[in-house]
Amino acid sequence: MTARSPANREFAIIDRLARRLPGPPAGEIWIGDDAAVLTPTGGRLLLSTDMTVAGVHADLTLVDVEDLGWRAVACALSDIAAMGGRARHLVIAAAGPPSTDMDRLGDGMIAAAAFHECAIVGGDLSLAPEVVVAVTVVGEIGEDPGPVLRGGARRGDLLFVTGSLGAAAAGLRLLRSRAGGEGHEMPTATDPTAVDVAAVDVAAVDAAAIDAYRRPVARLAEGESARRAGATAMIDVSDGFAVDLGHVAESSGVGFSLDQLPIASGASVDEALGGGDDYELVFAAPDPGRVAAAFDGAGLRSPTVIGRCTADPNQREWAGTPVAPQGWEHRWA
Amino acid sequence: MTARSPANREFAIIDRLARRLPGPPAGEIWIGDDAAVLTPTGGRLLLSTDMTVAGVHADLTLVDVEDLGWRAVACALSDIAAMGGRARHLVIAAAGPPSTDMDRLGDGMIAAAAFHECAIVGGDLSLAPEVVVAVTVVGEIGEDPGPVLRGGARRGDLLFVTGSLGAAAAGLRLLRSRAGGEGHEMPTATDPTAVDVAAVDVAAVDAAAIDAYRRPVARLAEGESARRAGATAMIDVSDGFAVDLGHVAESSGVGFSLDQLPIASGASVDEALGGGDDYELVFAAPDPGRVAAAFDGAGLRSPTVIGRCTADPNQREWAGTPVAPQGWEHRWA
Repeated sequence: MTARSPANREFAIIDRLARRLPGPPAGEIWIGDDAAVLTPTGGRLLLSTDMTVAGVHADLTLVDVEDLGWRAVACALSDIAAMGGRARHLVIAAAGPPSTDMDRLGDGMIAAAAFHECAIVGGDLSLAPEVVVAVTVVGEIGEDPGPVLRGGARRGDLLFVTGSLGAAAAGLRLLRSRAGGEGHEMPTATDPTAVDVAAVDVAAVDAAAIDAYRRPVARLAEGESARRAGATAMIDVSDGFAVDLGHVAESSGVGFSLDQLPIASGASVDEALGGGDDYELVFAAPDPGRVAAAFDGAGLRSPTVIGRCTADPNQREWAGTPVAPQGWEHRWA
Repeated sequence: MTARSPANREFAIIDRLARRLPGPPAGEIWIGDDAAVLTPTGGRLLLSTDMTVAGVHADLTLVDVEDLGWRAVACALSDIAAMGGRARHLVIAAAGPPSTDMDRLGDGMIAAAAFHECAIVGGDLSLAPEVVVAVTVVGEIGEDPGPVLRGGARRGDLLFVTGSLGAAAAGLRLLRSRAGGEGHEMPTATDPTAVDVAAVDVAAVDAAAIDAYRRPVARLAEGESARRAGATAMIDVSDGFAVDLGHVAESSGVGFSLDQLPIASGASVDEALGGGDDYELVFAAPDPGRVAAAFDGAGLRSPTVIGRCTADPNQREWAGTPVAPQGWEHRWA
């Protein structure tokens, strides 16, 4: 393709992407006008926006621009999962330098939207010095039980986590290690509960970890099941398990005492506690039987009970040891 | 403020901005959880997203980061105006390098939201190599008349434009000229209808043009009045009047014949035709009396009748001369 090809002009790219997307139902208008027109089915709306920046949230020397597109969509959807809502519509603003393959970026976004059964209904394309994707999700949620907030956990509630923690951070470590030509690097075991990688199929574990980083999945069905099972507070593990659980504890005015953590195969304890990017859900709920029944009824793997909420907001412990608020937070000068 | 001050950490900045914003009505949740919870009042929803990138849409050597924040919000709202809708809620993803004054960026966004009577209900802050702001607007629109699309213009419909054209481009030219130390630069008159700047108060004209560029206004009330007055097609002048009117003509399958254009004082014809960034509305409507009555009833200045839609889709003329599709379009390599 020659430089300045008409095929790589803004409106041509939008046309191409739009033709690959499913069209709207009667009465709605999606891509092609100044704004999308939607017909909510009733109930309350959820609205959330999330920005993914190359070099900050995803290193394009380690993952493909298509992966960045997928990640941007999945991360945004994860916020709707953390409310227990149903994600329905996405609008996406995407930008990148002239060398960006906007079609491949679109491939990843379209694949992630289809995987999570959401419709891309509008967007904006722009030039920018670096690849940046801002995804906004509109979701819906019923009235009873309503959205699961961060601040509703009560002392005595059990704490649950879906899936396992640390895989994405382990995957990023592996990608970095391979890019640096340093070969396979073992996680630093800082705790005896760290998995013994030598005992398992290393290649399969590595591939799973890298996939967890490249193609995270928003736990939408899990979030909805947790809401129906009486979850009192919920958050997604994006910045890091310890810091995200800390948000729940702070908002709810409770402490926590953890007994066990489902650490992903090949991940270190530090990666599980502070790595972030897992997009698993952490939630509090009083009744483990209801939780198990709701997840089972939806055909989902049961979440792990990791501990409980305590009355003392200063208590943040794992097996009696304080848990530092490990995780990511952007800082300006 | 010392570098790495805790006051410039992500969560502290969000807290500070959130405290300055009005809170939600009963039953809604705005900033502070994973997603905002909204209660639509019925009717259809409008959804639109728009990205503003420093160095692409706004030059931070010419305008303040606060202006960029204002512009990002106003440009996004303009898409809702172009549907004839009512803008209600905004979510904003903002990013910038470590040196960015995120509070001043927030000042501009908060001021623009308040000016346009919209609520900022959520957002995301991130580091990025350049300042980028993605604003998503949720609006509402009644059923009768419904949203004004681009493709509904019919031959014989009159064409209208709100306000005047070219002021923002003239303002940008003035800012560039001042930054370059070249003093006051007159517009190149490429047409005898260009305004004679020497005859008017140059300082006031310059200030108005610079303001039009720095602080554009989304014509929300005008868009709603046009919709109520039976507008058949509408678009906002963002990429450039000629290219934007071209979108309407193409979508509607009509041509256009223009008689006159309301060129802003101090702007050249080229700036009016192709400068973009004006955020005035161009619309087609069959009944000028209804349009005048609707605007007058809403206390708005009457839009200018600039010409009419014609049957031949290849006819795009101004006073018998072809109008080239001047304007902005991003291109990738």
